[in-house]
Amino acid sequence: MITMARRLAAPVAAMAGFGAWQLQHKCEAKSEQKGVHKTLTSVNDNTRTETWETNEQQSGIGGLAWSVRKRTLHGGRQEGCEEIEVDNGLLSFTILPTRGMSIGRVGAGKALPLGWKSPVREVVHPKHVDLQDFNGLGWLSGFNEWLVRCGVAFAGHPGKDGEQLLTLHGRVGNIPASEVTVEVDAHHPHTIRVRGRVDEAMFKFADWELWTEVATEPGSDKLRVHDILVNRSSYEREYQLIYHTNFGPPILEEGGTFEAPVQSVMPFNAHAMSEVGTWQTYKGPTPDYGETVYCVTPHSDSSGQTVVALVNAAGDRGVSCRYSTSSLPALSLWKNTDTVEEGYATGVEPGTGFPFRRPLEREAGRVPKLAAGGSVAFSLEWQVLRSAAAVSAIKAEIAGIQKGRVGTIDRGSPML
Amino acid sequence: MITMARRLAAPVAAMAGFGAWQLQHKCEAKSEQKGVHKTLTSVNDNTRTETWETNEQQSGIGGLAWSVRKRTLHGGRQEGCEEIEVDNGLLSFTILPTRGMSIGRVGAGKALPLGWKSPVREVVHPKHVDLQDFNGLGWLSGFNEWLVRCGVAFAGHPGKDGEQLLTLHGRVGNIPASEVTVEVDAHHPHTIRVRGRVDEAMFKFADWELWTEVATEPGSDKLRVHDILVNRSSYEREYQLIYHTNFGPPILEEGGTFEAPVQSVMPFNAHAMSEVGTWQTYKGPTPDYGETVYCVTPHSDSSGQTVVALVNAAGDRGVSCRYSTSSLPALSLWKNTDTVEEGYATGVEPGTGFPFRRPLEREAGRVPKLAAGGSVAFSLEWQVLRSAAAVSAIKAEIAGIQKGRVGTIDRGSPML
Amino acid sequence: MITMARRLAAPVAAMAGFGAWQLQHKCEAKSEQKGVHKTLTSVNDNTRTETWETNEQQSGIGGLAWSVRKRTLHGGRQEGCEEIEVDNGLLSFTILPTRGMSIGRVGAGKALPLGWKSPVREVVHPKHVDLQDFNGLGWLSGFNEWLVRCGVAFAGHPGKDGEQLLTLHGRVGNIPASEVTVEVDAHHPHTIRVRGRVDEAMFKFADWELWTEVATEPGSDKLRVHDILVNRSSYEREYQLIYHTNFGPPILEEGGTFEAPVQSVMPFNAHAMSEVGTWQTYKGPTPDYGETVYCVTPHSDSSGQTVVALVNAAGDRGVSCRYSTSSLPALSLWKNTDTVEEGYATGVEPGTGFPFRRPLEREAGRVPKLAAGGSVAFSLEWQVLRSAAAVSAIKAEIAGIQKGRVGTIDRGSPML
Repeated sequence: MITMARRLAAPVAAMAGFGAWQLQHKCEAKSEQKGVHKTLTSVNDNTRTETWETNEQQSGIGGLAWSVRKRTLHGGRQEGCEEIEVDNGLLSFTILPTRGMSIGRVGAGKALPLGWKSPVREVVHPKHVDLQDFNGLGWLSGFNEWLVRCGVAFAGHPGKDGEQLLTLHGRVGNIPASEVTVEVDAHHPHTIRVRGRVDEAMFKFADWELWTEVATEPGSDKLRVHDILVNRSSYEREYQLIYHTNFGPPILEEGGTFEAPVQSVMPFNAHAMSEVGTWQTYKGPTPDYGETVYCVTPHSDSSGQTVVALVNAAGDRGVSCRYSTSSLPALSLWKNTDTVEEGYATGVEPGTGFPFRRPLEREAGRVPKLAAGGSVAFSLEWQVLRSAAAVSAIKAEIAGIQKGRVGTIDRGSPML
Repeated sequence: MITMARRLAAPVAAMAGFGAWQLQHKCEAKSEQKGVHKTLTSVNDNTRTETWETNEQQSGIGGLAWSVRKRTLHGGRQEGCEEIEVDNGLLSFTILPTRGMSIGRVGAGKALPLGWKSPVREVVHPKHVDLQDFNGLGWLSGFNEWLVRCGVAFAGHPGKDGEQLLTLHGRVGNIPASEVTVEVDAHHPHTIRVRGRVDEAMFKFADWELWTEVATEPGSDKLRVHDILVNRSSYEREYQLIYHTNFGPPILEEGGTFEAPVQSVMPFNAHAMSEVGTWQTYKGPTPDYGETVYCVTPHSDSSGQTVVALVNAAGDRGVSCRYSTSSLPALSLWKNTDTVEEGYATGVEPGTGFPFRRPLEREAGRVPKLAAGGSVAFSLEWQVLRSAAAVSAIKAEIAGIQKGRVGTIDRGSPML
Repeated sequence: MITMARRLAAPVAAMAGFGAWQLQHKCEAKSEQKGVHKTLTSVNDNTRTETWETNEQQSGIGGLAWSVRKRTLHGGRQEGCEEIEVDNGLLSFTILPTRGMSIGRVGAGKALPLGWKSPVREVVHPKHVDLQDFNGLGWLSGFNEWLVRCGVAFAGHPGKDGEQLLTLHGRVGNIPASEVTVEVDAHHPHTIRVRGRVDEAMFKFADWELWTEVATEPGSDKLRVHDILVNRSSYEREYQLIYHTNFGPPILEEGGTFEAPVQSVMPFNAHAMSEVGTWQTYKGPTPDYGETVYCVTPHSDSSGQTVVALVNAAGDRGVSCRYSTSSLPALSLWKNTDTVEEGYATGVEPGTGFPFRRPLEREAGRVPKLAAGGSVAFSLEWQVLRSAAAVSAIKAEIAGIQKGRVGTIDRGSPML
């Protein structure tokens, strides 16, 4: 039996930048003696848990109310899907191990849901998703998450790359996690972590391990995603990763805005080009709108961090995302402000590149490579903004990064 | 928690013709207090039942013997499939929630099975069906039902429609039901109903709810299918639905006939054209026959109802189908009188259109549309004919609808 | 209820060469009274066993230690896969009913594993394998077995045959077995048998039953595969079957050799052609090597048997395979001596033909047909060679079959 820590150690030993994660892991090693350390699913241990639960009373950890509950879903296309619900007392969210550790729903209480409502109303088991359907659009028959990772061998729109059809947004959102653990620190601030390893492996083509972590603290208005992608192959390989994070009402509404320190923005297609003058403002639900997409390159501060935000019309509610542009230089803004029934939503999607077909992304120099045995880390912190003051603070921070530099708009012909 | 009735109410509130179903439902509301109302599968309740059973003794309902039994199938490609067997004392049949509420087997006792024997001998779980296989023919690797619905976004032969390959007979027969209930009325005639909702949902493309119901009464020689298709999308959408209902021996045999009030018939292809002179008569099992298909437009009576029948050679056994041609104007007659081992069978298939590729059907004006939020009902009543008298009565009824009008044969070139 | 024996009896009654299997079966019938006869999975009995175990103590059979253990795998892409582990005291191996009765791992103790290490590290459930992926290469996302059968309607490299894409190595390795039994004879030599029937059925296209058996004796260094393929269709049909058996270190190593009585060898492609001079010798792990394949036609002895072997560099360890060339005239030698991480392996693959696309195989006369109702048997005996003496004995036997005849090398242009 090999533990997760020991398995990870080998391939990433030489990885630059991985020190912080290792350090954190060692700290946990101490606290694990008193904290929660639960394996919910494990290929190594040949384990899968049907249901499980812990909370502050049961574990005796922390003074604030929190809980983590695991259940298995039944009926329809969700039969057999696993769901872990974390409630930190303020924020609650679900992790979907069966769907590549996607985050299903998020909300700050019932008053402030962050997600959106897709016509796909079940948590669809990958066994019922045929990625080849409709010439590579089958991913859409399972799409309803708040955050779904697109990738990792490919992540964009469907299309041929050589002889092979690369299906929409890749495979990793429809691969069940092989190892899933829940950890809660005994020491302050009692961080709650849900970790899972998702393997995208195909003989001759891919040997990716995506180590995912979603973390939060009791009472916090933040959740953090901290992933490490490892290339276990002997060869340098291209990868793509897009954090397809999606929002609906009440934050998304007519007059709501997308805020970011913009270096440049490029309309994705002709429809987006026609509205580029108002690209940072949202329409209300609009019949026959379909979608527009803007390819944004944000500025970052001296430490390589950027902040972007989605803000409602009144400017008193929103959500921000703080992340490093070094591993995620591109941000796709998906404005799907069609009708409510069709899924009125916007996607704020930091990524290694934009969702053009991979050959186009490669030509544009936006398909990074990972060395044999190499790894790369991705960290994003989402924060719920619950007051005008919180919104103003983020706007000020964004302005500080922008430093008055004017973002450019690429009005050249879009690549689609 | 939202009950089925409440969920249904909203989208179909404005639906013309839905009054009858609602009225029926209200009547049931009364009887439910004493009758059987069992939820077997529910996404809303996060429930799936491994096994369950009720009958006249256990429930205290009705004076005749009847039973409803639910089990889960195991082994091979049927692992995990759900099956509900209804026995009304005369007829018995199985409903397959995992396969889109198809009807698996039907028989009036062991002496008079209505179904057929496919080379596919298991109830195949959709996870083992790859609809893309063999250029869109993968549906055939799960095909063995007595009644399987083809549809609902597309229903015919595989082929490209624009950029997308529409696979044979659509998706709905391979989508597991999200809500499944069994109901038995406390009051006479103690109707037994198995209901299930099947969702064909794909972001940007489809948001269909197909509410299915199969009903019968203790001791009856009839079973009724009553479906309602709801378009939950904001947009008018094309749909196709074919009730692919299939029969083998003993009703199907050499010299057996298909009876219908025929307005017109069109051979599906050259092979069918070559035998159009005997299109209503069946051959015995015929090596290398393959299949012929005839596209029939039946007459209906003044109330819009038609009756068709399949009759054995002696004219003393058969099965009839009574339905409204308003929502199902077309009927495909599939004569698969190949060898017994290959699946000697005939399909009597009322539908919204014929099984040509959708672009051809659209061009011929046979692809209906459903408005945003709209719904359409389909009702079919199948009756087993167990005597020469019963067969004669149906033939007389058919002649009454035909009223001596001569059906035309379209000898023009078939569209395939 | 129909037992396996009775079901089998009918279709293969007239089969030439099947007498031996029937005779064996009758002998077992006697021993079954005292021996072990356990049904683990059965569509007929609607049974699936989560876990099960027997051994020499529990059963009271035999004087040597042995065991058979069945378990169900959990987590990741292996969720729900069945695995049967047979340990005869010397050899241990796993059978994977969910993956077409493939043999997963094999080893003579921990010191001498026979298998290899694929980047695909889980026993992948077919529900997570999309054979259509990457233009028909999806099979590679589940490939890590010691022995996987390629077939049975088609078995080679992906490519169109008429309108249909035949996916890599066919379907049968990703079809779960419908009937699985374990049998242990009460009488000496207490043969342990794991049997399973895998159905490749598709209406209009295929009705194959593949009856598989893996057998060994307590304390033996041999395991035998004995399969019977039955064509239940009414029509003569083409079939292809390749026993894709794969080896890694320690037997595979630099300087290791493939030994066989060679009638002729044909390089599969240009890369193989360039190294044809050393085709029987292995390289160590070689970055960027990829693979080479040689198409071998072995000689057989007067009874139609041949022997081939894989031998390590020192010539003191190896594995041999003894089989009849009458049903398996071709042998593909797959030299995948790439890096260890990419899956350093070699495949010794007796087959009905070579893995070229089916149209090419057909043109070359290497696609056999099976009559309606006909069947064909395949028997292979693998033996672990644990000493220089054992290796020498096999080499002498091979030389005896070769009888000094010089094998020809087909240096013509390869067909790929």
